[in-house]
Parts: sequence; C-alpha cells; structure tokens
Amino acid sequence: MSRDRLEAFSDGVIAVVITIGVLNLRPPAGDTLSALRPLAPKLAIYLLSFVFIALYWNNHHLLLRAAERISGAVLWANANLLFWLSLTPAAAAWLGPHLGESAPAAVYGVVLLGSAIAYSILTRVLLAAQPPGSPLERAVGRDHKGNLSLVAYVVAIALSPIAPWISVAIYFTVTAVWLVPDRRIERVLRAPSSSETAPTAASGEPRSRWRHPGH
Amino acid sequence: MSRDRLEAFSDGVIAVVITIGVLNLRPPAGDTLSALRPLAPKLAIYLLSFVFIALYWNNHHLLLRAAERISGAVLWANANLLFWLSLTPAAAAWLGPHLGESAPAAVYGVVLLGSAIAYSILTRVLLAAQPPGSPLERAVGRDHKGNLSLVAYVVAIALSPIAPWISVAIYFTVTAVWLVPDRRIERVLRAPSSSETAPTAASGEPRSRWRHPGH
Amino acid sequence: MSRDRLEAFSDGVIAVVITIGVLNLRPPAGDTLSALRPLAPKLAIYLLSFVFIALYWNNHHLLLRAAERISGAVLWANANLLFWLSLTPAAAAWLGPHLGESAPAAVYGVVLLGSAIAYSILTRVLLAAQPPGSPLERAVGRDHKGNLSLVAYVVAIALSPIAPWISVAIYFTVTAVWLVPDRRIERVLRAPSSSETAPTAASGEPRSRWRHPGH
Amino acid sequence: MSRDRLEAFSDGVIAVVITIGVLNLRPPAGDTLSALRPLAPKLAIYLLSFVFIALYWNNHHLLLRAAERISGAVLWANANLLFWLSLTPAAAAWLGPHLGESAPAAVYGVVLLGSAIAYSILTRVLLAAQPPGSPLERAVGRDHKGNLSLVAYVVAIALSPIAPWISVAIYFTVTAVWLVPDRRIERVLRAPSSSETAPTAASGEPRSRWRHPGH
Repeated sequence: MSRDRLEAFSDGVIAVVITIGVLNLRPPAGDTLSALRPLAPKLAIYLLSFVFIALYWNNHHLLLRAAERISGAVLWANANLLFWLSLTPAAAAWLGPHLGESAPAAVYGVVLLGSAIAYSILTRVLLAAQPPGSPLERAVGRDHKGNLSLVAYVVAIALSPIAPWISVAIYFTVTAVWLVPDRRIERVLRAPSSSETAPTAASGEPRSRWRHPGH
Repeated sequence: MSRDRLEAFSDGVIAVVITIGVLNLRPPAGDTLSALRPLAPKLAIYLLSFVFIALYWNNHHLLLRAAERISGAVLWANANLLFWLSLTPAAAAWLGPHLGESAPAAVYGVVLLGSAIAYSILTRVLLAAQPPGSPLERAVGRDHKGNLSLVAYVVAIALSPIAPWISVAIYFTVTAVWLVPDRRIERVLRAPSSSETAPTAASGEPRSRWRHPGH
Repeated sequence: MSRDRLEAFSDGVIAVVITIGVLNLRPPAGDTLSALRPLAPKLAIYLLSFVFIALYWNNHHLLLRAAERISGAVLWANANLLFWLSLTPAAAAWLGPHLGESAPAAVYGVVLLGSAIAYSILTRVLLAAQPPGSPLERAVGRDHKGNLSLVAYVVAIALSPIAPWISVAIYFTVTAVWLVPDRRIERVLRAPSSSETAPTAASGEPRSRWRHPGH
Repeated sequence: MSRDRLEAFSDGVIAVVITIGVLNLRPPAGDTLSALRPLAPKLAIYLLSFVFIALYWNNHHLLLRAAERISGAVLWANANLLFWLSLTPAAAAWLGPHLGESAPAAVYGVVLLGSAIAYSILTRVLLAAQPPGSPLERAVGRDHKGNLSLVAYVVAIALSPIAPWISVAIYFTVTAVWLVPDRRIERVLRAPSSSETAPTAASGEPRSRWRHPGH
C-alpha cells in the first residue's frame, strides 16, 4: 500500500512536470505562419523534455514494480529524483530560445545529469531496502546504459562552452537510446523463477542488458 | 496493475492539460462588462479544447478498459497521444485571440489532427498487444467515425488559408459529433460473449458503428 | 471500476483547479509589509474559491460514493461540472483586484451559479442511471440547500450592478453555509436499510435535510 | 475507501503545489552563466519549499495510514492544511528575489507556521475520529518535534524585522531536522501490539520520540 501511494504521488508530480513545460510555448506575437519560426527550437526542446520525463516515468514504473519493500530512505531518494525532474521545465525555458548558446546548454545538461544520478541513487536505496535475492536485485544487474548516459552527460556539459550544438545533439541522442525499453526488468518480471542465460555483452554497445548477479 | 498505473498517469497528464488552458483566460484590463468582449472568442476556444480533451479522456478510458495486455510499445504510443494533447492549450492560446486568422486556425487543426492520428496509432498498438479474438479486437472494428474525423481535419487545415472561419466551424462540428459516446466498445463490454448482429452501416453517416470482425 | 477512474480524473482536475488559483497571488512589487496591502482582497477571494472548490470535491465524493452505476451521460454531466469549476480561477483573477466593482462580481457569481446548476444536473443524471430504490435516490431527497444556493446566487448577480459588495457577501455566506457537511448522504451510507424519520423542516433555514422519498 | 480518495485528492493537490513553484524560476534575461546569479537565491528557496512540502506529504501519508476512520471534520482539517501548503509557492515567489528583506521572510514564516498549526489540528481531529486505543493514538504520543517547530517558527517571525537572515536560517534548520523520518508512527505500524518501552527524552533535543500514552 505504501508503494501504491508513492507511485500515485510520483505520477502526480511527473504529470504536472511533463505538462507544465507547455507554458514555455507562448503564442507568437504575430498571426502568420512565419511568426511561428522562433517557436520551432522551443518546440524541439519541449519534445526532448517530454520524452526525457516520460522515460523516467516509464523506468520508475518498472523499477517500483520490481521492488517489494519501501523504506523511509526510498521516499527521500524518490523526492530527490522528483526535485531534479521538476527543474526540467525551467531549464527548457532557458534553452529553448537560446539553442546555440553555451550556458543554457550546460545548465540543461546539469539537470539531465542530476536526474540520472538521482535515479541511480534511488535504484541503490531501493536495492538496500530489499531482502537478499529479491527480484529487483536480479533485475537491475550492471547498469551499462545508465552509466554510459552519465558519461555522455558529463561530456556534453564539458563540451558546451566550445560546441553547444554538440551538447544538445548528445542530449537528443541519449534520450533516443533510452527509448528502447528497459528489457532487463521486464524480463525478470515475466519469468521471475527461471534461470535465464544472459546474452553476451557486446562491448561499447549503449543498450542495457541483463546480467545475472551470480556471474 | 500495469494498466492501472498507465491510466493513473494518463489521467494526471490529461487533468493538467485540460485545466491549464484556463490560464489563457487572463482577466481583462478594465472592470466593466464590455471589457469582457475580447474574452468571448478565447472562452469559446477554451470550451472547444475542454470538450475535445474530455472526449479523448473518455474514449481513452473505454479503450484501455477493453485492453487486457499492455506492452512497452503501448506506453510509448500512449505518451505520443499525451504529447499531442498537451499541445492543445498552446494552440488554443494562439487561436483564441486570432479567431479569424489563417495561421492560428491551421496550427490548431494540426494539433487536433496529430492527436487523432496518435489515438489511432495507440488503438493499433494496443490491438497488436492483445491475443487473437480479444474483446478489444471485437470492440474496435472499422473506425468510420475516426477516419471521417481525420479527413475532416485535413480538409479544415487545407481550407484555413482561404476560409479560416470554416476551419474553426469544422473543429466545432467534429467535436460535437464525437460527443455521442463510442457505443461500439461499451456494447462489447456489456455483452462480451454474445454474437451480436451488426447494424447496417448507412454510408456517409458520421456515427461510428459496430462491425463484427468475422464480417 | 468505471466509477473509480471517473473519481480519479475528477480529483485530478479539481486538484489542479483548486491550486492554480494561487498563481493569482503574484508577489508584490516592493519588499515591505505595506506592499502586501493590495494582496489582501486577492487572498480573500482565493480563500473563498478554495473553500468553494473543496466543497464541490467533498459533495462530489459523497455523491459518487452513493451511486452504483455510471452511464455515458454521467461522464458528460461530470465534465460539465468540471468545466464550470475550472473557470473559478479565471473569475477570481478578475474579482480579486476589483473587489468593489460590479462586472467582476457578476461574472464570479455566474461561475458559481453555473457550477451549482452543473452539480444539480449531475445529481439528476446520476439518479436516472440508478435502479429504482437505489441508495442515492434515498439519499438525495429534496435539495433545499442546493435550491436556496441557486436562488442566492441569482439574487447576488441581480444585485451586482447596484451593490457589488453585497453580492460578494452573499458568495461568502453561501459558501459558509455549505461548510456544514451534507449529512443527508452520509446518513444513508451509514444506515442504508433503516427507515429513518425525517426531521421537521424549519421553514427558511438554509440547512439541507433528509427527506424520505415516500413522504 | 473514503480514506483512499482523501489521500488521492491530497496527493493531487500536493503534487501541483510542489511543482508549481518551479514557475518562479523564470529563465534569466541574458544567456551567460553570470546571468544565472539572481536565480541562485530563488533556487535555494525553491529547494527549501520542495523539501518542506515533501515532508508534509510524507508525514501526511504516515498519519493517514495509521488512521482507521475519517469524519467530515477530517475532510475540512485536511483542506485547511492543503490551503496553507498551497500558499507556499506564493510566499516563495516573494522571498526568493528578496532573501535579505524582513517582510518576505516574515510572510514565508507565517505560511510555514500556518501549515504546521494546520497539521497539528488535522492530527487532533483525526484522533478524535478514532475509537479509544487506536493505533494512531498510540503512535502520535507527545509531539515534541512538532511543538518545537511551532516555537522555532514563532521565534523566526519575531526575529525577521531585525535579522531576516537568521529567520531564513531557522526555516532551513527546522526543515533539515524534519528530514529525519517520523519513527514514532512507523514503529507502531510495524509492531502494533508490542508494548515498547519509550526511550528517555533528552531535554532540548529536537528529535521526536515515541511516548506511550499511559506514561
């Protein structure tokens, strides 16, 4: 029951965060199609932010479904994630109209990085709250995709003073990669007792994959 | 359970989207009733958008109730629908104060069309996730009303450079037609095992109707 | 299940509507306590609107709990109520800074009246969807309080051109009267099979009371 | 069931309140990192408000879980709490850009104090609705932490005309102290029938602790 209300509250916050960004798409001053041109970059960043937050909702959903116990620390690790996600519309409001500038690109990247770190902390705190050998433990394994995202965000932030367009391209790329659903957890939920063999990990491939903790 | 949380999240997003549009109804500058006059078209578009989004909530609700399985693709088809719906307040904010203009009428139509296409994609992705002979498959049948709406929106967008008032009239008309609830799905849910005979489809009538897949 | 999702969606919309009004309380220009003075009437109207919407949530909650069946018409009567409630923050945004003016007082009253009528329609549509002798039918009885509110709102709107302060005083008074919870429905839910005797209706008293339909 | 919907509505309102504050973080005028400097105090107050509201959500959650009965008075005590919490974004919008000023610090403190008093009223009203010897009664005991918070807020408001920075420091300190989860209620929920011995209360220490009502 505790988990249900945690999910319900998180859903509420994420629902507000994902939609409040549309307030950045103020109507243009004129009434012609050409007056829409300055809206295009804002719309692109709104789409990026929407997909980014939807991804977190999706993975958050799978993560909590695999968890069986919620501790007080989980509530706060979850609030920390929600805090970072809630900064997305503010960072998007700055990046949208300044798509080629360094500082807004860096700040947007910091929010993405902060959210990714917060998600990773939430995963660990959740794991610590489970009994040994829990479904969640078997499901999470080594988080190659998560780790690679963190590295990509750091690189993008570091590049932003020199090449802000590349930073933004990295944000879009990482988000696109994550659109592939997290099959690790889904697989465990479907066959929680089977002794699946892990697929061989092709080095460098940004897809996450299943790793049995006994390996 | 997965479906429950998908519904809860969608409800949250739709609840924010449907109400955030009221922020477009800023109080008038003066304090007399005549100062309200510029609000009238904004209120009309707010009402149109409210009914439009309520329709989607309603049909989304019936659609998911008939579905038994949710896949990862369903989550993203659903996010795509929510994205298009979330653009409604922004498009309404432009159309409201420019009710006779071509570009805002076209853009509003594009958002309606995008939402309708996204709903149609969601229906197909949901169908693909069900086992053969599922209640959803029997319920959906041929979507005459949906297809006619798509055509109407395309016509309205095409007319907007010449006759934006007609475009807006089409948006109101299509929404009014949809106010008739989607009896196809309701009927199946009530009598899931009966072998109903389909009513004869009067050609050209914009009402949706039940079609048994065996026909 | 249908009722659950209707409640969840209504809760979401009402939660947004009740809180979005706080955006009308923009920070004052200065940084002294005296700079707060223009906020006082806005805060009063925000409080009035908050209590008004909380009342509707409360009664909506009791009403739906007593209902056993939801029809398609109920969904639309409910959407109509949500539409009127969603106009409250917009009307409050106008009334707050123009507390002594006629037009804003009239418009605010129209929104209150529209909500009250919409609630009354919802009650009737819900009753029509129930089987004869349902708990809801026994619970609703004659709605003295509701009818008196409608009359009060009409009087307040009619008075607004002459005495807008009295109109606003009526809005506060009616809301205060409604703060007394709707015992009619609560009583039936607690003792659904008992044949309670109705208390004698003291004429003119604005409290609602239980009336057995057989009387 | 009644409790479920009360929780769902409260979650919805709190989710909107906690995220709407991000609208105070408007993008800076320029596009350089130094243009972010005026955002820093706003971000600090947004973080403070976020944690403050998350705390209330958390404790509200534990409180309602321990309650078995909801009365009409509980609904209104709960609405009163939600009203005070909903003022947080407005108070934060004033304090953020005026961090060293007296009046905004005082007003922010009044909102914190009002929320704390409202929570304390809700606790009492909930207790009054429970049968004697309820889990909630055993769980709440003497609320040292709550009482100390009230005193701290009063002191901070009193100090604000002279030393507004100290007031703000007190707000941060009290919030940090509350981050320690409320173990009193958690403990009772886990071992509802055990006769735990209360730890000795070290005078002056701001941590809340369990007190058996029979002591």
